[in-house]
Amino acid sequence: MHEFIRNAWYPLAWNRDVDRSLVSRRVIGEDLVVYRTSDGQVAALRDVCPHRLLPLSKGRLRDDDAIECGYHGVTFDSRGACVRVPLQEKPPAAMRVRAYPTHQSMGMWWVWMGEPEKADTSKVFSLPQYSAAGWSYVEGDSLHMKANYLNLADNLCDPTHVAFVHLTTLSNVQSGDIPVHFDSKGSEVVTWRWVMDSPLIPIFQGLKAFDGNVDRWHFYHYLAPCVAYIDFGSALTGTGAPDGNRGDCIQMFACHFITPVDHDTCVQHWLCIKNIPADAGQDRKLIEGLRMAFNEDKRILEAIQENEAKLPDVKPVKIALDASNTRMRRIVDQMLAAEAAEAAVAVPAAATPAATAVAA
Amino acid sequence: MHEFIRNAWYPLAWNRDVDRSLVSRRVIGEDLVVYRTSDGQVAALRDVCPHRLLPLSKGRLRDDDAIECGYHGVTFDSRGACVRVPLQEKPPAAMRVRAYPTHQSMGMWWVWMGEPEKADTSKVFSLPQYSAAGWSYVEGDSLHMKANYLNLADNLCDPTHVAFVHLTTLSNVQSGDIPVHFDSKGSEVVTWRWVMDSPLIPIFQGLKAFDGNVDRWHFYHYLAPCVAYIDFGSALTGTGAPDGNRGDCIQMFACHFITPVDHDTCVQHWLCIKNIPADAGQDRKLIEGLRMAFNEDKRILEAIQENEAKLPDVKPVKIALDASNTRMRRIVDQMLAAEAAEAAVAVPAAATPAATAVAA
Amino acid sequence: MHEFIRNAWYPLAWNRDVDRSLVSRRVIGEDLVVYRTSDGQVAALRDVCPHRLLPLSKGRLRDDDAIECGYHGVTFDSRGACVRVPLQEKPPAAMRVRAYPTHQSMGMWWVWMGEPEKADTSKVFSLPQYSAAGWSYVEGDSLHMKANYLNLADNLCDPTHVAFVHLTTLSNVQSGDIPVHFDSKGSEVVTWRWVMDSPLIPIFQGLKAFDGNVDRWHFYHYLAPCVAYIDFGSALTGTGAPDGNRGDCIQMFACHFITPVDHDTCVQHWLCIKNIPADAGQDRKLIEGLRMAFNEDKRILEAIQENEAKLPDVKPVKIALDASNTRMRRIVDQMLAAEAAEAAVAVPAAATPAATAVAA
Repeated sequence: MHEFIRNAWYPLAWNRDVDRSLVSRRVIGEDLVVYRTSDGQVAALRDVCPHRLLPLSKGRLRDDDAIECGYHGVTFDSRGACVRVPLQEKPPAAMRVRAYPTHQSMGMWWVWMGEPEKADTSKVFSLPQYSAAGWSYVEGDSLHMKANYLNLADNLCDPTHVAFVHLTTLSNVQSGDIPVHFDSKGSEVVTWRWVMDSPLIPIFQGLKAFDGNVDRWHFYHYLAPCVAYIDFGSALTGTGAPDGNRGDCIQMFACHFITPVDHDTCVQHWLCIKNIPADAGQDRKLIEGLRMAFNEDKRILEAIQENEAKLPDVKPVKIALDASNTRMRRIVDQMLAAEAAEAAVAVPAAATPAATAVAA
Repeated sequence: MHEFIRNAWYPLAWNRDVDRSLVSRRVIGEDLVVYRTSDGQVAALRDVCPHRLLPLSKGRLRDDDAIECGYHGVTFDSRGACVRVPLQEKPPAAMRVRAYPTHQSMGMWWVWMGEPEKADTSKVFSLPQYSAAGWSYVEGDSLHMKANYLNLADNLCDPTHVAFVHLTTLSNVQSGDIPVHFDSKGSEVVTWRWVMDSPLIPIFQGLKAFDGNVDRWHFYHYLAPCVAYIDFGSALTGTGAPDGNRGDCIQMFACHFITPVDHDTCVQHWLCIKNIPADAGQDRKLIEGLRMAFNEDKRILEAIQENEAKLPDVKPVKIALDASNTRMRRIVDQMLAAEAAEAAVAVPAAATPAATAVAA
Repeated sequence: MHEFIRNAWYPLAWNRDVDRSLVSRRVIGEDLVVYRTSDGQVAALRDVCPHRLLPLSKGRLRDDDAIECGYHGVTFDSRGACVRVPLQEKPPAAMRVRAYPTHQSMGMWWVWMGEPEKADTSKVFSLPQYSAAGWSYVEGDSLHMKANYLNLADNLCDPTHVAFVHLTTLSNVQSGDIPVHFDSKGSEVVTWRWVMDSPLIPIFQGLKAFDGNVDRWHFYHYLAPCVAYIDFGSALTGTGAPDGNRGDCIQMFACHFITPVDHDTCVQHWLCIKNIPADAGQDRKLIEGLRMAFNEDKRILEAIQENEAKLPDVKPVKIALDASNTRMRRIVDQMLAAEAAEAAVAVPAAATPAATAVAA
């Protein structure tokens, strides 16, 4: 069984961060060379020249979107086919590089790491509010974290940590013991809690005036393996927000796209959609507040990762609030098991090729 | 057999270095969170929250001396008992943290890493001169060293290296071939030599005027596994110092408390007691001289550690002057073997618990 | 079978870089302490005191060329014999250090890492042009590279990479597809190509005026395991250079002496001999140009080394231009196999000593 689910769309890079330079990005343990093609799309090839293993990202991008290896000029087009080997007429059959399907959604380029024929762009995550009228968004960072991606996933199924980790940004101290609920369906787990009759949380202050305390909701949606969005908002207490009456409220969707890099590292790409018009000053303040909050998580998750490496034999002691992230991890395990079972059927034992690991 | 003796008082931290902040310190491979309690004592808990393995030192110290974990607010009192798990009434039985007995002596807080019922504070090292009339002391550093603690222990059973390592501080060049003697009793090894009719050593200069050369003694006491004190002094030649007549002399006790951190690292906490009144200028100079000397040892011991790691198959060639440190290492081995034998009797094979490694 | 050929002269240090200070240098995985002796020669001893494994380079060089260990004063002469152990009359038999034969040639001190009785100084590499009339040379760097030495050796059997790696220094872009030839004899592989009727390469510009394009030759000589020299030059097109008529030409010998440090690291010592008189300004410019070129190689070779470590199962896909470096590697393998076979005959199975690894 692999450590990572392969048949999934993983976040690769913000559209704003891709141009004609060759950049190396690691996704589920594989290095990809990523670049903008002439038609405005994004190409992702395995970042290894099969000839001598030089990363293709050390090479040169030609005008026709092919990459010329920086050592001997072996050249591959954006689909990974070899189009030139200097000093010989025809490339050897094994001289090809795996290309990965990509797709853009919500300002993010996603990459399909599994079997190419299963890549279905309609399955790439997309939230309608991203481009709906009355909504705006701020695009955040690509936060590198020395933490296993599932530890970050735990964090994104978990409204309860907010009262202890994010006192200055996302929480009020009194929310520690308010009940949490969860449910799951398919690959999605939703965990939520309502905090009734409470002051505005720090990062909402100044965005909208309320005439008194608010009722706050926090719905953590996790779509295994690598997408989370947190629907959180506030409406004036007593106006029926829990019953769906949220005409006059602040609502935000904090979206988190997680790239598992390798066992110990991940990247948290985040953006925040809101039912508040774009405003340069407020938006900058919102980004700063969220950046501070997600760095608070990073500090915690990196310290846990260090201790997990030091203490491989210590099993965590479960408590009641672990229920939803335990469910999420079970879903991930089931997805991995299903892939392993399928792979066992698909590959006849004798047919595994030996020397084509770099190729498709 | 473990690498480290467990039933021992190990130096943890200078009293001056402990306050209400949560600090992590590693002793014989275990991370402890250390802090001052309200009653002026020092608490030491295993630095791991059993819930998700976050170090407790990343949490918050409450006014009642309990630590609230920085991730989900699971809270432990200074004895390691869990007093709160948010969102549930009663903590699970396994939710407890090991607490370690501590005791202060000679300005140092010591921690007992073994079976709690064997912790006997009367066994903590103490030298009467530390608080005796006519004596004063300077408290030195906590010198971190990338060296196995037994290599440092070798050094502290060994007057002979002084002539080669400490020419500018503790030695005169001509002492290289003066005979060395040793004896041992229980867990203590004493190694000594007299240097007769010799000039004062550099760090003694200016402390007392002698009308000619001196007779110097150097008695290295090592108390396995982690305490050394070096009784060294000088009296005017011909006044009978070797026969016990030391009425008019300089005498110092350089005390070394060693914390084994892990296989490759230790901390050398040192202080120096002397039969000379406190004097700000002289004391500062003495600290500087000793600091220079112990850093001379550190340079040697770290280079040896690197070579030991590179050359695991090379066995040192023994020479005559190795006799006392060989004895010291045999004592350590016997202590380890005794603990292993006792553990084999104490734990019935089927009763080892599987998932309580973080707990007491 | 060892990783490295032992019976070979390896480059150790430029003569300019050796004096009376004790310097540690690693050659084929062994640390040597290197210093100038009173007679102007260079001594190389294993850099480990057998007593406690302190590097001898941390000790003190005595006027009589013996090294006194910095810990306990055990002392070795420049042939590795122990001449003093403090506190005992006679050193133990095992107290000796391996000394390595050295020899100077072309400004470089070479060290023999194999069986001492096979060290033949007449086999040390030497090029007659180094000291011939009408020739001058520039002595370059000792370039440290995080790359296996055989990957650097590949590079020095390979005129074809020049068109892709060294566009600004050693090449013109159009040479990519010009045929390459090679031949081998004994431990030498020669790989060459002619570039006819072409402009001067960048680093030749300004050295000599030609009335038009030139014919360029590039002969890469590789002498396994660790010496390369590249005979490259240019003569006016149509004057018969390929037929041996090179009366009026620029000719250089770029010499590369490779020290394998360990599996992942090597040092490339280089110098350049030329049929052009010494000239401070031109020579400085030549050094700068070559330095830039060899750093271009370093960038490539270090990136390959990283990928090889990440992808231990990926086998390079061979292409036509690999023929000569494949031959070179086969020669190295044959030399290793021959040494292994000889060792198997020489050492009777029961006679291997256990504790003399530091000694001769």
